[in-house]
Amino acid sequence: MSADNELGVGMVGYAFMGAAHSQAWRTAPRFFGLALAPRMRAVAGRDEAAVRAAADRLGWDEAVVGWQSLLERDDIDLVDVCTPGDTHAEIAVAALEAGKHVLCEKPLANSVAEAEAMVAAAESAAAQGVRAMVGFTYRRVPAIALARRLVEQGRIGQVRHVRAQYLQDWIADPQAPMSWRLDKQKAGSGALGDIGAHVVDLAQYITGETLTGVTGLLETFVHERPEASSSAGLSGVADTGRTGTVTVDDAAVFLGKLSGGGLATFEATRFAWGRKNAIRLEINGSAGSLAFDFEDMNLLHFYDAAEDAATAGFRRIVVTEPEHPYGGAWWPPGHGLGYEHAFTHQVVDLVGDLAAGRQPTPSFADGLGVQRVLDAVERSAAAGGGWVSLA
Amino acid sequence: MSADNELGVGMVGYAFMGAAHSQAWRTAPRFFGLALAPRMRAVAGRDEAAVRAAADRLGWDEAVVGWQSLLERDDIDLVDVCTPGDTHAEIAVAALEAGKHVLCEKPLANSVAEAEAMVAAAESAAAQGVRAMVGFTYRRVPAIALARRLVEQGRIGQVRHVRAQYLQDWIADPQAPMSWRLDKQKAGSGALGDIGAHVVDLAQYITGETLTGVTGLLETFVHERPEASSSAGLSGVADTGRTGTVTVDDAAVFLGKLSGGGLATFEATRFAWGRKNAIRLEINGSAGSLAFDFEDMNLLHFYDAAEDAATAGFRRIVVTEPEHPYGGAWWPPGHGLGYEHAFTHQVVDLVGDLAAGRQPTPSFADGLGVQRVLDAVERSAAAGGGWVSLA
Amino acid sequence: MSADNELGVGMVGYAFMGAAHSQAWRTAPRFFGLALAPRMRAVAGRDEAAVRAAADRLGWDEAVVGWQSLLERDDIDLVDVCTPGDTHAEIAVAALEAGKHVLCEKPLANSVAEAEAMVAAAESAAAQGVRAMVGFTYRRVPAIALARRLVEQGRIGQVRHVRAQYLQDWIADPQAPMSWRLDKQKAGSGALGDIGAHVVDLAQYITGETLTGVTGLLETFVHERPEASSSAGLSGVADTGRTGTVTVDDAAVFLGKLSGGGLATFEATRFAWGRKNAIRLEINGSAGSLAFDFEDMNLLHFYDAAEDAATAGFRRIVVTEPEHPYGGAWWPPGHGLGYEHAFTHQVVDLVGDLAAGRQPTPSFADGLGVQRVLDAVERSAAAGGGWVSLA
Amino acid sequence: MSADNELGVGMVGYAFMGAAHSQAWRTAPRFFGLALAPRMRAVAGRDEAAVRAAADRLGWDEAVVGWQSLLERDDIDLVDVCTPGDTHAEIAVAALEAGKHVLCEKPLANSVAEAEAMVAAAESAAAQGVRAMVGFTYRRVPAIALARRLVEQGRIGQVRHVRAQYLQDWIADPQAPMSWRLDKQKAGSGALGDIGAHVVDLAQYITGETLTGVTGLLETFVHERPEASSSAGLSGVADTGRTGTVTVDDAAVFLGKLSGGGLATFEATRFAWGRKNAIRLEINGSAGSLAFDFEDMNLLHFYDAAEDAATAGFRRIVVTEPEHPYGGAWWPPGHGLGYEHAFTHQVVDLVGDLAAGRQPTPSFADGLGVQRVLDAVERSAAAGGGWVSLA
Repeated sequence: MSADNELGVGMVGYAFMGAAHSQAWRTAPRFFGLALAPRMRAVAGRDEAAVRAAADRLGWDEAVVGWQSLLERDDIDLVDVCTPGDTHAEIAVAALEAGKHVLCEKPLANSVAEAEAMVAAAESAAAQGVRAMVGFTYRRVPAIALARRLVEQGRIGQVRHVRAQYLQDWIADPQAPMSWRLDKQKAGSGALGDIGAHVVDLAQYITGETLTGVTGLLETFVHERPEASSSAGLSGVADTGRTGTVTVDDAAVFLGKLSGGGLATFEATRFAWGRKNAIRLEINGSAGSLAFDFEDMNLLHFYDAAEDAATAGFRRIVVTEPEHPYGGAWWPPGHGLGYEHAFTHQVVDLVGDLAAGRQPTPSFADGLGVQRVLDAVERSAAAGGGWVSLA
Repeated sequence: MSADNELGVGMVGYAFMGAAHSQAWRTAPRFFGLALAPRMRAVAGRDEAAVRAAADRLGWDEAVVGWQSLLERDDIDLVDVCTPGDTHAEIAVAALEAGKHVLCEKPLANSVAEAEAMVAAAESAAAQGVRAMVGFTYRRVPAIALARRLVEQGRIGQVRHVRAQYLQDWIADPQAPMSWRLDKQKAGSGALGDIGAHVVDLAQYITGETLTGVTGLLETFVHERPEASSSAGLSGVADTGRTGTVTVDDAAVFLGKLSGGGLATFEATRFAWGRKNAIRLEINGSAGSLAFDFEDMNLLHFYDAAEDAATAGFRRIVVTEPEHPYGGAWWPPGHGLGYEHAFTHQVVDLVGDLAAGRQPTPSFADGLGVQRVLDAVERSAAAGGGWVSLA
Repeated sequence: MSADNELGVGMVGYAFMGAAHSQAWRTAPRFFGLALAPRMRAVAGRDEAAVRAAADRLGWDEAVVGWQSLLERDDIDLVDVCTPGDTHAEIAVAALEAGKHVLCEKPLANSVAEAEAMVAAAESAAAQGVRAMVGFTYRRVPAIALARRLVEQGRIGQVRHVRAQYLQDWIADPQAPMSWRLDKQKAGSGALGDIGAHVVDLAQYITGETLTGVTGLLETFVHERPEASSSAGLSGVADTGRTGTVTVDDAAVFLGKLSGGGLATFEATRFAWGRKNAIRLEINGSAGSLAFDFEDMNLLHFYDAAEDAATAGFRRIVVTEPEHPYGGAWWPPGHGLGYEHAFTHQVVDLVGDLAAGRQPTPSFADGLGVQRVLDAVERSAAAGGGWVSLA
Repeated sequence: MSADNELGVGMVGYAFMGAAHSQAWRTAPRFFGLALAPRMRAVAGRDEAAVRAAADRLGWDEAVVGWQSLLERDDIDLVDVCTPGDTHAEIAVAALEAGKHVLCEKPLANSVAEAEAMVAAAESAAAQGVRAMVGFTYRRVPAIALARRLVEQGRIGQVRHVRAQYLQDWIADPQAPMSWRLDKQKAGSGALGDIGAHVVDLAQYITGETLTGVTGLLETFVHERPEASSSAGLSGVADTGRTGTVTVDDAAVFLGKLSGGGLATFEATRFAWGRKNAIRLEINGSAGSLAFDFEDMNLLHFYDAAEDAATAGFRRIVVTEPEHPYGGAWWPPGHGLGYEHAFTHQVVDLVGDLAAGRQPTPSFADGLGVQRVLDAVERSAAAGGGWVSLA
């Protein structure tokens, strides 16, 4: 354990997610009072030069080769797993067994079996006060946290409908290159696991309910893509003359029933030209409605059916007031936040839970719950679209 | 046949749809040059006083009791069927057999069997130059007609996704009264047939494709409702102390595959608080995207993937230019149209087709196609959500 | 006077405004219960063939050459003046003196002096029960009427700010042809009088206050334009090889103070590319705010400062409920209205006032008030932008 | 001078702006390759305990009492002035004379005379390679930088109209407490200088033109406010029982002419209920239009008049592509940025200019230009709204 009130952090992986997590660890204590002071001890990777450059750029004290070494260090209390999904189970289980808290990126794992093993490890660790959390970061977008709060307060009543979409267009162009995200070995699934996982989690989180069954379809529109010689972020340069085979879904659509009796529709696609990162959620309840679109991430729309008919209407709430979740810590009202602020909020909440000895949410069990839904969608699609119950 | 270039019209039913059709027959010749002059000869109903009042209010020359008498008159060339769905088949078939053109409100019928009989009658009649058309009026909203044109022109390429929703809230309140629209005997089905039919038709119309299979769920959220003593439009006054049993679906969600390989999601509900008549369509193709919401019915949003990345974006097209469908006949650009203008356009197109001896669209066969989709959704839902192929 | 409860109407002019008024006279009795039955007796114009064609197309019983003959007929109770502004005073004064009610298109006149004469004539006529009304039709857009109602009810408190814009782009192209609207002799002024007049009226109407002074600038961006050989609506075909000189303003911007102490900004332009008919109004009061844009004419946005900070937000009111102005007469909620519906509402209100012996609003005096504001803006602009008081 | 490629930074002031600047200095090198490495050496203030706490929270190596000591240190190369406007001139001039680069928050000064002295100091310093920049940070919002780029590229042609508003509501409530921003001694002016300055700068920056004259009105709606015992951000707690007198404007409205012949309207207010930080800019040119609202800060709307009439429309550009200004350095497309990112971009650009020996923009002369506009508005308002030329 780190001395005093420090929280020594070691991160594995340093690409897109690593950059977002680093910014969060660096920024959280500047805007929020934290009970533990995060210390960015080391980042781990396989390529020594690359990890060294990442440590410098992202602000970690050290670069180490191989994540295993992080587990042996006393000055590291938490392992932050930012690698592709095929490695989550191995790293997270080992870290928990080594007594390190774990923050693991989503999806929790590439299979239900792996996720179950992770949950088992998390439960054992919890008995020792060692905590595990999965990074469904969008829960910490203030507008989404406000949506959850309004549902909890009964402001929309009983949930009738969830309409959840995650629309992107980054591979709508057939010439967009191959990437590990299109390789089933690495990524587990395509749009379903990468972005569909988010909207499944958000639907369950905001409603406070679970899906009891699904029926769905998966589709791959473009089967062969040019191989990229290098990659940066989600894009890359395709100049090798070779092609690679896409082994994951390009798009997923599915229906579900909620435990409270409502109906849910889901869509996840990377083929929606013009939609860059459109996470859209609409929830209709017996007493009101909510609507959100990440393309306007600082807004939440709320309809209160109790209002007078002459002045009722969806309220466009600019979620930047001190009264809002995470409000007041940043800027004055109307000075909106961006994508990575949700990662900072995740650090704030996680550190608060660790300091208080509480289980952070979403837990690995929550992550497993999402994984089971994704698995059910895959089974439904494989069987031609029949109903799969999630008992 | 009417003398000269008159088109004698007789209408059956005079509620919501009858009012809209009347306004259309009255207005079309004032803004458009028509090859035939519609003459609003008679409106038919069952209650003599009521039909008389309707004739006066809506501007029909005569009121008659019983639709059958319309078929015997030489001065009536076309029968416009605006009654509930359970009477469509009987009236339309008889009218066609009597040599009258028929404009029949949607859904074409309450069952596939009835719809098939109507198609057979329409085909026989067509051989005699007698025409039949089903009133999927929203096709004539200029923004929707423009969407179809852009798809036809290849502006969005091959269709990957259709996202179609028809959201209302008029019975989200459990105290909203019973109406014939909630009675399976009269209405055939609930949200599915009443409003879901529209989005199925629009999805097939705009894409120019057909659904090859579906999987879906139906739900009734409120089973007992107060009986209304009277009704006006879609609402009514609930003051009888009695309740009635809702025998139709309150909401329908379904997935489909398009004949071109795309995925489609559908939702029809009357339980989406705050959404008054939100017909929402989004279509993503290999070369661009389209988006429409009837709550902003004069707008079409179009994304052209061929644009330069720095300036690409959904274009908010105000569909009131002379270059747009039905444009130029009404007002200067930006002076928007309303709901009933689509009915006027329907009259314009129908009269043009009759004058030219062409088959108007959508035909009864198109209506049957929609009916088969609805029937497949019902069968899927009845079987717990499995896949139903539309061979 | 017409017999019984008929209201005999004669219209002068039959272009854009004449078509809108005709549709209104024809439609009002079909959707609203009117205490007098409008009878479209005759339309008057100068060109016999053209006025004959107009009568047929627009649905008037007769076509007459010369508006004077309308004044001599017993079967005409009301003269509806739809001609360019330079003829308003002569026709309206003569009609009032002949004992005919007058509905006169805006702007009331091309000069303050003319408007004053018209007000004097209206006051004399009123003593005889003969009524005069000016056609600031946008007051009858339901969302605008609702805005007025909310201000009257004190829902936004004391007015601090009015932000009023009328943006079009129909002559942003320097090759758009000359028209009478660009000729000072006919039109009086350009954007200022044609469209600026509307937003001045709306600002005063909604707030219930008057402007106490202004400072403004006028600008003509394009001085020479091709002559059109013919015209239709606001556009035309430019093919003569000749050019005409624009003698009116292309754009007007001005500031004002309201009688209650608030600040107002105004802009009227035909050079705002992409804005087709964007009448935009925003009003901020001590207790709330309102916002409207005619490009979404069925919506009103309302912010209630009394709401809880966590859920306060502009409410997007879809102004199609029975509880809304003119609501219930048309279609179910969410089935939006279009541009010309406001003309129908104008007829409804006018007929109701005539039947009840009430002064309709806006009166000629209201029209004169607007004219004085426009005149003050012109004087301010002519003097280089100084303050002009409206005592 | 700092050794090697370090840039030693000392900051004066540590409230709202100090927090934003600190985040920028800390974040810039993590996402952008910088030719100089900023080192956050010291923050200066008057209250020892407060500045010590600020240094810890904001991440500065040292806290010092009194800004003068920063000027004496060799390890500080740049002084970042984040204090209220009444102290800008003294600090900035002294720092420049001491050979320190200066980044000074806006408005440059509270008077034209002070601003002129600052420009003189900046010019002298420039001869020594010492640079001065004023913090009109909103220029670095990617959507605004893109707007400037499109104007420069001629995409909207010659500018006809600018419509610029900065709307807030943080003191619309008369019980909102006094603050230094409402005290003319400290703040110089109210809404005009605080937020109006931004939209004046943005209008001139995006168009590349200057204002040649103005006419304007200022208004104070609430003259007495409760005194706050403490303050945080823009708000505070009003519990002293005393009141303070507001000596600045609550709102400013003004018109201007642009050097290229266009018309501009401006509004700055803190009394627009429901508008939290609505910086709205619209620019209409002879070839197209642009529109921006900071409440959707990642979007730019662009209308290209060269497009086909059938598909022309405002394009909603999500300004997060690699092709966009500052794009590619942060996250994948659609993962939006927030308020403080513009401060990071400001650091990036400033550091780049310092490393290259270039004059950064906006310069103090640019800041003086804005100050002169504000001064002209104040003179116009004081004289009752007459025209004031900016020769």
